[in-house]
Amino acid sequence: MIEPELVKQALKSKKVRSEEAFGLEYLRFNDDFKDIPRGTAIFKDFVVWGYPHIGRIFVLETGLKEQFKAPFWVEEKVDGYNVRIFKYGDGYYALSRGGFICPFTTDRLPDLIDLKVLDENPELVICAEVAGPENPYIEESPPFVKEDVRLFVFDFMRKNEPGFLSHREKVELIERYGLPSVQILGRFTSSDEDIKKIKEILRRFDEEGREGVVFKEDSPENRRAKYITSYANLMDIKVNAKNMLQLPPEYYTNRILRIVLFMLEEGIERNQHLYEELGRAFIDGLFEAIEQYKKEHKVYRTFRCRFRKKENALALLELLSKTSKHIQVKQRRLEPENGYWRLEFDKIYLNMTGLLGHLLKGGLVYD
Amino acid sequence: MIEPELVKQALKSKKVRSEEAFGLEYLRFNDDFKDIPRGTAIFKDFVVWGYPHIGRIFVLETGLKEQFKAPFWVEEKVDGYNVRIFKYGDGYYALSRGGFICPFTTDRLPDLIDLKVLDENPELVICAEVAGPENPYIEESPPFVKEDVRLFVFDFMRKNEPGFLSHREKVELIERYGLPSVQILGRFTSSDEDIKKIKEILRRFDEEGREGVVFKEDSPENRRAKYITSYANLMDIKVNAKNMLQLPPEYYTNRILRIVLFMLEEGIERNQHLYEELGRAFIDGLFEAIEQYKKEHKVYRTFRCRFRKKENALALLELLSKTSKHIQVKQRRLEPENGYWRLEFDKIYLNMTGLLGHLLKGGLVYD
Repeated sequence: MIEPELVKQALKSKKVRSEEAFGLEYLRFNDDFKDIPRGTAIFKDFVVWGYPHIGRIFVLETGLKEQFKAPFWVEEKVDGYNVRIFKYGDGYYALSRGGFICPFTTDRLPDLIDLKVLDENPELVICAEVAGPENPYIEESPPFVKEDVRLFVFDFMRKNEPGFLSHREKVELIERYGLPSVQILGRFTSSDEDIKKIKEILRRFDEEGREGVVFKEDSPENRRAKYITSYANLMDIKVNAKNMLQLPPEYYTNRILRIVLFMLEEGIERNQHLYEELGRAFIDGLFEAIEQYKKEHKVYRTFRCRFRKKENALALLELLSKTSKHIQVKQRRLEPENGYWRLEFDKIYLNMTGLLGHLLKGGLVYD
Repeated sequence: MIEPELVKQALKSKKVRSEEAFGLEYLRFNDDFKDIPRGTAIFKDFVVWGYPHIGRIFVLETGLKEQFKAPFWVEEKVDGYNVRIFKYGDGYYALSRGGFICPFTTDRLPDLIDLKVLDENPELVICAEVAGPENPYIEESPPFVKEDVRLFVFDFMRKNEPGFLSHREKVELIERYGLPSVQILGRFTSSDEDIKKIKEILRRFDEEGREGVVFKEDSPENRRAKYITSYANLMDIKVNAKNMLQLPPEYYTNRILRIVLFMLEEGIERNQHLYEELGRAFIDGLFEAIEQYKKEHKVYRTFRCRFRKKENALALLELLSKTSKHIQVKQRRLEPENGYWRLEFDKIYLNMTGLLGHLLKGGLVYD
């Protein structure tokens, strides 16, 4: 549990807010506070700890040797959004990374995973990635999810406890309950031979358009690190061009640096094709934004997803409106379709819309 | 003149600092303060006003119509650094944009311009760009300066007065005293026909590797705006890769947006070549930084310039050390060569050096 005194301090420094959703009242850490990660949620009967940050290595060869003293498991990192699923009373709920009860994921849980595992082990919290073209949060989706969304378990936590179940315990649960999970690529060491194998996996992932891998040490310390393919970095640049003004300073420079280090490490030649890919990622995204603005006087992206209950679709729109800074959320369509409620909505990027409006009508910029 | 009360207020808010250089004591505005631009310098007998900001238009067609009500002159914008030259007692001095007396420019004035104009008109301040491969400040240089530096006059101010002499007065002075000046491309209006001509100039400038143009209204308001070629934006990205972490957030995104708008306006097709150029600008710069770090354990760039007096070279190094944040300045060589003092020094980019050091030895980054 978390000391009441600590919660009081966090409340004072506005690191904790009180939330209500699906009839549940709880406290949500909206920022890291001391040892408590952002997204930690304190309910009446228990705490669901936030999913901790995982550091990124930019160079496999030195990074794995530096970070891991024991063998580690390599798992695929799926390009979606992170949820923590738990049982409360008779209900099942999914928390977003930030600690909101996600109306979309919570609504769709019965389609995504059999939660018998939580009936028989109600103290467990399932950590999973939800990914696919029909999600309300991110534009990217993995190549192996062709429609809607799918869920991929990658960790278990226990209520009231930070930290994860061991790899062995996790795999047992996944197998016993037949849970959908991320691909586990094997147990490796940071020997030169193993690093060669890991590089081969990542080169293949890059070609297949997969995001990357997470390394998890097979030890009580359970040290972790992630590594992302050049493909995923390029996609990040491309899909975010519309929202360019909203991103933190290092967003682009960091990704370009990662691409260059990926190439160096994988022995990929600097060639016309790669130059072209990076240039295209920036330019096409911006072109699209400008063309869209010229036609419709706003820069936006349309999201589509399906719900079991209409009320959850409305709750999602409300949550997005509340939590998206400088983005206007606008419903396009909400109607029954093949047994679901089909929601379509736009995220209008207000900063980009404002800047393009100013520039295209001939405004001055001082810099 | 500037009201003493205003100077007092500025001193209180730390917008003014006291400086000493070349035996002159003065007050320097290190930031904009009310109507007083950064770089304004208050000497015992007079004030040299700062060179005001010129806004940038991103779109010629609408920008010129929106910004200019009267005909305007189009002048070449030379890619160098901005100085204001004035006479004090028997000496001539050059102030940098930020209001420092530049030891390099001041030292080299006799090589760059005949200052008889200031002897006969001591109330004048010459505004000029100094550009070329051997300057101590910026990596870029215009295609028409093959060695050392050259000076290009583009405005005159009067001591104690903000604002500029009229175009007619400027041209008269330039002609009477045979001063080196920027290229004046003509007097235009924002008619469709003239905009077509201006676009042609900029397309040619882009192909020739020139930076862009400044528009100056031929009216008492003397409204101004600048416009930059796609070439110059690409070069900015390329040469700054080594110092990537030091630049403000919008540095890159802004330039990419400008490139895309330039293409749209000039009817340049999105093609493989352009994609490639942008990708290359980012990737080659970073590759070079990484290769340099691997070999020498630091990321730096070497600058070369020549001085008439050794003491001025040393003063420049001291000024750069004092004013460059997160950059270490290191002398390589200072010795007589062909009647000058040849200075070579490195600017070591500490942030990039630190980050690459961390990443290449396998460090984690949390983001």
